[in-house]
Amino acid sequence: MSTYTIGLDFGTESARAVLVDVATGEIVATNIQLYADGVIDERLPARALRGSGDKPLPPDWALQNPADWLATMETTISAVLRESGVAPESIVGLGLDFTACTVLPTKADGTPLCELADYRTNPHAWTKLWKHHAAQPQADRVNDLALQRGETWLPRYGGKISSEWLMPKALQLLEEAPELYAVADYLVEGSDWVTWRLTGQLARNACTAGYKGTWHKRDGYPSADFLAVLHPDLSNLYRDKYAGPIVAPGQKVGGLTREWANRLGLAQGTPVAAAVIDAHAAVPGGGVTGPGSMFMIMGTSTCHMLMAESEVLVEGISGVVEDGIVPGLFGYEAGQAGVGDIFAWFVEHGVPPAYHEEAARQSLSLHQLLSKKAAALRPGQSGLLALDWWNGCRSTLVDADLSGLLIGATLGTRAEEIYRALIEATAFGTRVIIEAFTEQGVPVESIVTGGGLTQNELLMQIYADVTGREMVVAGTEQASALGAAMLGAVAAGSANGGYDTLADAAGHMAPPPARVYQPISTHAAPYNTLYTEYRRLYDYFGRGENKVMKTLRQLRAK
Amino acid sequence: MSTYTIGLDFGTESARAVLVDVATGEIVATNIQLYADGVIDERLPARALRGSGDKPLPPDWALQNPADWLATMETTISAVLRESGVAPESIVGLGLDFTACTVLPTKADGTPLCELADYRTNPHAWTKLWKHHAAQPQADRVNDLALQRGETWLPRYGGKISSEWLMPKALQLLEEAPELYAVADYLVEGSDWVTWRLTGQLARNACTAGYKGTWHKRDGYPSADFLAVLHPDLSNLYRDKYAGPIVAPGQKVGGLTREWANRLGLAQGTPVAAAVIDAHAAVPGGGVTGPGSMFMIMGTSTCHMLMAESEVLVEGISGVVEDGIVPGLFGYEAGQAGVGDIFAWFVEHGVPPAYHEEAARQSLSLHQLLSKKAAALRPGQSGLLALDWWNGCRSTLVDADLSGLLIGATLGTRAEEIYRALIEATAFGTRVIIEAFTEQGVPVESIVTGGGLTQNELLMQIYADVTGREMVVAGTEQASALGAAMLGAVAAGSANGGYDTLADAAGHMAPPPARVYQPISTHAAPYNTLYTEYRRLYDYFGRGENKVMKTLRQLRAK
Repeated sequence: MSTYTIGLDFGTESARAVLVDVATGEIVATNIQLYADGVIDERLPARALRGSGDKPLPPDWALQNPADWLATMETTISAVLRESGVAPESIVGLGLDFTACTVLPTKADGTPLCELADYRTNPHAWTKLWKHHAAQPQADRVNDLALQRGETWLPRYGGKISSEWLMPKALQLLEEAPELYAVADYLVEGSDWVTWRLTGQLARNACTAGYKGTWHKRDGYPSADFLAVLHPDLSNLYRDKYAGPIVAPGQKVGGLTREWANRLGLAQGTPVAAAVIDAHAAVPGGGVTGPGSMFMIMGTSTCHMLMAESEVLVEGISGVVEDGIVPGLFGYEAGQAGVGDIFAWFVEHGVPPAYHEEAARQSLSLHQLLSKKAAALRPGQSGLLALDWWNGCRSTLVDADLSGLLIGATLGTRAEEIYRALIEATAFGTRVIIEAFTEQGVPVESIVTGGGLTQNELLMQIYADVTGREMVVAGTEQASALGAAMLGAVAAGSANGGYDTLADAAGHMAPPPARVYQPISTHAAPYNTLYTEYRRLYDYFGRGENKVMKTLRQLRAK
Repeated sequence: MSTYTIGLDFGTESARAVLVDVATGEIVATNIQLYADGVIDERLPARALRGSGDKPLPPDWALQNPADWLATMETTISAVLRESGVAPESIVGLGLDFTACTVLPTKADGTPLCELADYRTNPHAWTKLWKHHAAQPQADRVNDLALQRGETWLPRYGGKISSEWLMPKALQLLEEAPELYAVADYLVEGSDWVTWRLTGQLARNACTAGYKGTWHKRDGYPSADFLAVLHPDLSNLYRDKYAGPIVAPGQKVGGLTREWANRLGLAQGTPVAAAVIDAHAAVPGGGVTGPGSMFMIMGTSTCHMLMAESEVLVEGISGVVEDGIVPGLFGYEAGQAGVGDIFAWFVEHGVPPAYHEEAARQSLSLHQLLSKKAAALRPGQSGLLALDWWNGCRSTLVDADLSGLLIGATLGTRAEEIYRALIEATAFGTRVIIEAFTEQGVPVESIVTGGGLTQNELLMQIYADVTGREMVVAGTEQASALGAAMLGAVAAGSANGGYDTLADAAGHMAPPPARVYQPISTHAAPYNTLYTEYRRLYDYFGRGENKVMKTLRQLRAK
């Protein structure tokens, strides 16, 4: 009898369930549901505000309603069960991935503060979504203090942590709503809160704790002493509010409770795996479970994940976490803050009507039309070079205040040339990251890619040409959900119809590559020339020799 | 009885005549006519090719038919006489301005070679228009040799002469059509050829000879020795082919011949003034005849003209010519190769459909809409900075291979912000030129502007703010034609109903300013900050520290 595993992929706007054949990795059924309250960034949902008026949220806030996660989980799982006709007893495990850091305050029994009448009209009672950016002042103070004190955890994150992460969000809660910080028994990641609901066990997954919560397997968390200097009442953050055992990816957190087994239509005791961040789930989902193979998820931004057998501090990487992706290995994460969203910006704000009309006549999207025209150019023919910092530079400079640059424009410059230069710039940015790893002792032997941008053949060819490496496109477009399903199979173990390791699971369940792009040898020379120029501009504007980008940002903000 | 003067403005596509009241400067009548053959840049006019087939011209060629100048002169002058009803005896003088270097080969009696059956099918027999750019290889050799030999005339032109000028065009004629060079008794500027036709006297106007023919009042022309090294047969260029007395602006070349008096309906003997280049005619036309007042003609490119009492070699200026603009003074010329055409490029190639639709709804041009939106931004608010080198950098770097740069772009950048940054960049470029003059001992005490861009209020205010100087907009939109008319009045002299000097003429005939833009004091600080950054980028990319623009151009050309 075939066995199956369920993967749940909790995204920003929606949740997806896949029901997967454990032996083959075939996705037998899939279902996706939007969150009823979506991203809450303008005002709290109406029903939460009974009698207390309509308060708009401040700028940069982004909240989520935890009830939406449970509701979409029920709907999507029942849908894949119905669609597949698979019997509950054949489901050997359940795994999930989640956005992060997406964190909510709860009582000791897991009840979210936003579900309690006393607190629900206070925005701080709600889940702060990963892209809640209102804790930037707190992040600045965390970074300044950590740098000043020489905290050893800081270099593991490229010397700076983001306002999206746990400490800034917790400090904002404490400072702006001290009464809520006090009554919150726990601060919990959405991922861990869902596994807690399902199993009755509160555990902290190593991936989110490590990449967003500054946990380290050997050194633990930042010290209470450090926290106390930030704010006297923050010293209990990790000891009390973030308490709980750390569980590695695929480790079984517990079995499904009777209540949740009933609600989901699954068998009581079905193993539930420790979650991982959505991007990181895509790594095994894309077939990568060992050292030396970099997995890149290429979308609005790009996340680069890579494993190695040892811990090295690589300049400008976003984090290194032992057990962060695959147990037993050190997972490295780097990132480019703007990739697809730079191309989207250009297509929306920089392309004249004639191109829109031509695209419509040819029934192409503007991206397709521009790619087609840009593909007719040889490397270097545009005469343009860009620095891909429209959304700042995450790796390797870790500086959100850097900005985009385009050089080489003439009166003959046309939209497809700029489009191509922007693609090339993001490819150069990836090459910088690859070289940062390899030059600092973390080997990159192969590259596997996933995400929406892998559909663009011109882009993939440029990435192959610029890096001089084969670009393998993962064989699934649902790498995160498939990876989550693999975690469920590992939580079950081979004795129960699953697998004992993520490598085993991926070996059987990851599909073969969809496509492979080989570098074109004649493109190496012009791209090496352009890359040399890119690196010079990168260092000149990015490392303080010319601070014009900072000056421009200050003038803009005045 | 009132007296009148006629100004003729020979442009690239058309000629204009104005009939002007000598006492007041009032333009009593004006008429404009297109040249029948226009700019000849694809093939010779059909009637020139009888029996010899249809030969397309090579790239970068641009020719003109001298018959068009005479025909339009007859039509426009008869039209202004008719319209004004002024009696021919009241016309005291006639002056003209012309594009340059616009040069044709003629026989000893002035007959253009292109009007002789033996030669007319050879493109080299025709007038080479100022924007004929096919002599670039010859220009490169002229510059290389002059630099190598340390020719003293080279630094007067910023260290490099243009392919548009006399020597490259003459050398191209000699090398590509030696038989025509041999039979051409003269090479003549269009301006001097017209005054020759009108008066029977061949003279060379100091303005064109100085700015385009490398003539110097004290040192004369480049030596026959230099010319002989370029090509053995070129040594007679200045001695024979370019022979003729030099006449200063407004000096009388002669009186109208009986034939031309009849053809134009004017009195025989009417004084005809030495011509000037069209841009330079606008200087007195705009009311500037003394030292220290810079006149800027702002259009697709900007030409900056300034007079002083002495000759100084200012880095990167296009030329300094004694008697070049006003007799007795040294006329300096600088330029920005791309100004209005950068904005036009952006409007055509970088603005998305939503702006086009909004402009149409508001019955505005795109320039007007973008200016309106950009005017709502305070200085620095765009967060952008540009180097205005889309068409290379004429002054002060004299380098056509430099290219445009935009820095500071983010995902929030919008079209009006780029538009404003481009305007600001051209204003910074003007400030560099002003500082080059003032720092090297040529005072700039005031600024007067003319040309199409003076219609843009936002642009003019930005120029005032960036330079910290009053921007005076000349009171006439026909500054060149009015200046030409003043030259006619000066050729007449006060004894004959005109004036004795250009200063006298302009003092009476130039209208008061149309508008004056005052610098806004609160804008000085942000623009000084931005200008400091502009200068740093200007030097970094423009003076060889970072040669990326050259590298990009080489890659483009491969």
